[in-house]
Amino acid sequence: MAGVDTRTGDPDRADLRIDTERLLTRIADLGQIGRIDGPNGEWGNARLALTDADRAGRDLVVGWMHDLGLEVTIDALGNVVATWPGTDPTLAPVMIGSHIDTVGTGGRFDGNLGVLAGLEIIETMTHAGLESERGVQVAFFTDEEGSRFAPDMLGSLVYVGGLPLETALDLVSADDGARLGDELERIGYAGTAPCPAPSAPHAFVELHIEQGPVLEAEAVTIGVVQGVQGISWTEISIVGQSAHAGTTPMRLRHDPAYCAAAITTYVRDLTRHLGREQVGTVGRVDVYPNLVNVVPARVVLTVDLRNTDDRILREAESRLDTFLEDLAVAEGVTISTNSLARYEPVDFDAGMVDLVEAAARRLGHSTRRMPSGAGHDAQMLARICPTAMVFTPSVDGLSHNIAEFTETDDIEAGANVLLQVVLDLLSTEAER
Amino acid sequence: MAGVDTRTGDPDRADLRIDTERLLTRIADLGQIGRIDGPNGEWGNARLALTDADRAGRDLVVGWMHDLGLEVTIDALGNVVATWPGTDPTLAPVMIGSHIDTVGTGGRFDGNLGVLAGLEIIETMTHAGLESERGVQVAFFTDEEGSRFAPDMLGSLVYVGGLPLETALDLVSADDGARLGDELERIGYAGTAPCPAPSAPHAFVELHIEQGPVLEAEAVTIGVVQGVQGISWTEISIVGQSAHAGTTPMRLRHDPAYCAAAITTYVRDLTRHLGREQVGTVGRVDVYPNLVNVVPARVVLTVDLRNTDDRILREAESRLDTFLEDLAVAEGVTISTNSLARYEPVDFDAGMVDLVEAAARRLGHSTRRMPSGAGHDAQMLARICPTAMVFTPSVDGLSHNIAEFTETDDIEAGANVLLQVVLDLLSTEAER
Repeated sequence: MAGVDTRTGDPDRADLRIDTERLLTRIADLGQIGRIDGPNGEWGNARLALTDADRAGRDLVVGWMHDLGLEVTIDALGNVVATWPGTDPTLAPVMIGSHIDTVGTGGRFDGNLGVLAGLEIIETMTHAGLESERGVQVAFFTDEEGSRFAPDMLGSLVYVGGLPLETALDLVSADDGARLGDELERIGYAGTAPCPAPSAPHAFVELHIEQGPVLEAEAVTIGVVQGVQGISWTEISIVGQSAHAGTTPMRLRHDPAYCAAAITTYVRDLTRHLGREQVGTVGRVDVYPNLVNVVPARVVLTVDLRNTDDRILREAESRLDTFLEDLAVAEGVTISTNSLARYEPVDFDAGMVDLVEAAARRLGHSTRRMPSGAGHDAQMLARICPTAMVFTPSVDGLSHNIAEFTETDDIEAGANVLLQVVLDLLSTEAER
Repeated sequence: MAGVDTRTGDPDRADLRIDTERLLTRIADLGQIGRIDGPNGEWGNARLALTDADRAGRDLVVGWMHDLGLEVTIDALGNVVATWPGTDPTLAPVMIGSHIDTVGTGGRFDGNLGVLAGLEIIETMTHAGLESERGVQVAFFTDEEGSRFAPDMLGSLVYVGGLPLETALDLVSADDGARLGDELERIGYAGTAPCPAPSAPHAFVELHIEQGPVLEAEAVTIGVVQGVQGISWTEISIVGQSAHAGTTPMRLRHDPAYCAAAITTYVRDLTRHLGREQVGTVGRVDVYPNLVNVVPARVVLTVDLRNTDDRILREAESRLDTFLEDLAVAEGVTISTNSLARYEPVDFDAGMVDLVEAAARRLGHSTRRMPSGAGHDAQMLARICPTAMVFTPSVDGLSHNIAEFTETDDIEAGANVLLQVVLDLLSTEAER
């Protein structure tokens, strides 16, 4: 057959729908691994990258891939790709992907939804007896969250050639001192497929929860993602002079806790001055020795700055640098910085963005074009192929939180938009 | 004999001096227990109250007390009192005291100097064949630092009847969840002597390092302590809304880390507005979940406010309360407070202060009247008997730091002033 063209009215393909129960069951089953229960019935996951819990999650998903008859490859960084073959093996496949690792107190939809919706689409197409010249792949990438091994989106970054494999394998966890390559071996996911990938997909598409409050606030079902904010993560270490809280006059203090506070309030001020697209967060603060009656010796904190406009993001970084220099002099402390991650903003392929919007509207959903505030594997794949993302709403905008939730109707809508986009991509290879 | 009166010119007593080597050896020996070595040769101690290290330290000091032939009593809160008997057992003894517990990264002089100088004075008087109608006691009090069990100065507080014994025994450590009474039993220091003490000492005197930079900065050898600053410790818990650092617009945030920073900079502002006697410190900050890309759900921090003037201290507390109320509304967070300790300023007995100053001057030392910025057991004893303190300089003003140090000449000077004050107190009971 010569591809399916839902846009020209093939009723079978345009009416194809995923099985929502089957998808929800897989999400719930994967969520049992590393499950965390909250006090009010909410529950989420702790499956930090390359832990035993991550291995168990990987084993479950790889088992499902095998159950669907897919060919599964594991590359040298533990990225897993399952292939539903096309009839013409010379054509690059359409890839659906995301991640299944979580933060330490993560939700069960973040990442997992995009991977399991991919499997659901394969199963839906298979049950419908659908064939295509071009194949479809479902991928999950190692260490997207970056919670255990910085930087985040690591697996997809190396997959597209953005960081040498050996550098990634030698990363050491700030949490537990483990080396990434050793942990990959330990859990049995140091595969034999090459990484970076020797060839690019035809296109890449990722379904993900919004992880923010905008869609819910505007009662919109489908977010049409135009690109991803640039991200700048900086770790700031401040060394002062530990002293007694009662006996040391204020004028003689060199207080790193005061400096950390001044930096944190400055970050808030920066976001006010640089406009509403600029966000800034101090999420981690470690104080030493952390005692009520001791002016601390040392404080380490992180600053997370993001903007869709790289020029403004660089301005924010530059102003923060100047502030740190002035603060170090004023308080008589030593301030050093370490970049944990720096990604420029990404604009997705305009044709791909149109495709997502058109598919969502055909299915009758409200849509909104928006940037992604979070980083995603899609932004890495955008370096090597046309890429798009579909967002579904997050209840109360929550994510990286076990209370993260997305309504069933929204999951169903998002997965069906993803299905239609994939069908469109299978049908339109001539145009691209 | 009818007491010794060094002020009227008894040459034997006025010329009596402690054995500095013997005192330094005891300080060094006690410092071996829970010793912490720094990278540059500096060393200090971790003997948190009622830990195994504290037990070992107690055992060593109690052994020395027995070696000196003293009667040792241990009370129900683990306060240890060694008695050098007078010839008239109806007279209340002069008490010398301090503590031997340390903070987690403490020095080897803080507290220990006052206790071991007391033993040195007993040994000096014994070797000199001195007798007195009034006896002398050397005491060390449980959990002066308050690092493991808040509040600080706990042992002396209960000793003087300032807190019910049962309340103290039921305290639970925020660090490790241990109950104080259980730990006291575990280390074998739940004694049989009553606590609070059934009778007051004739007078109390404590030798302590300054723990601040003033004496060194002014090249003064002996600090004549007029009183102790009032202390207000507040634990502040801020509950916000955990959210994704990239996707949550600034206007929708309820960020407890920002609030903690605003509180910390406000505390600095408060000290500026309320004058140079007012000090304020944020020494402890705990952030949950403490991840670079997550707006925290919750932050707990402590504020330490001190002033010699209770009116201004209350003003500082009141302004902070108002700031917290306004901040909670502005950021949409919940802020709750918990008082960890609150002690009013203490003025020492004017006659005792004069006695310290006169003794120091007789020995040819420069002196300076000053308040204590730190809390001390002496401020508790001041509730039940005339009390004084002698300060010796701290190099670089450091304390609660393993680099804490006091020069040998200053230790010798301080211990000899203490000796002379004790001899004066033994000779002048008729005047009090």
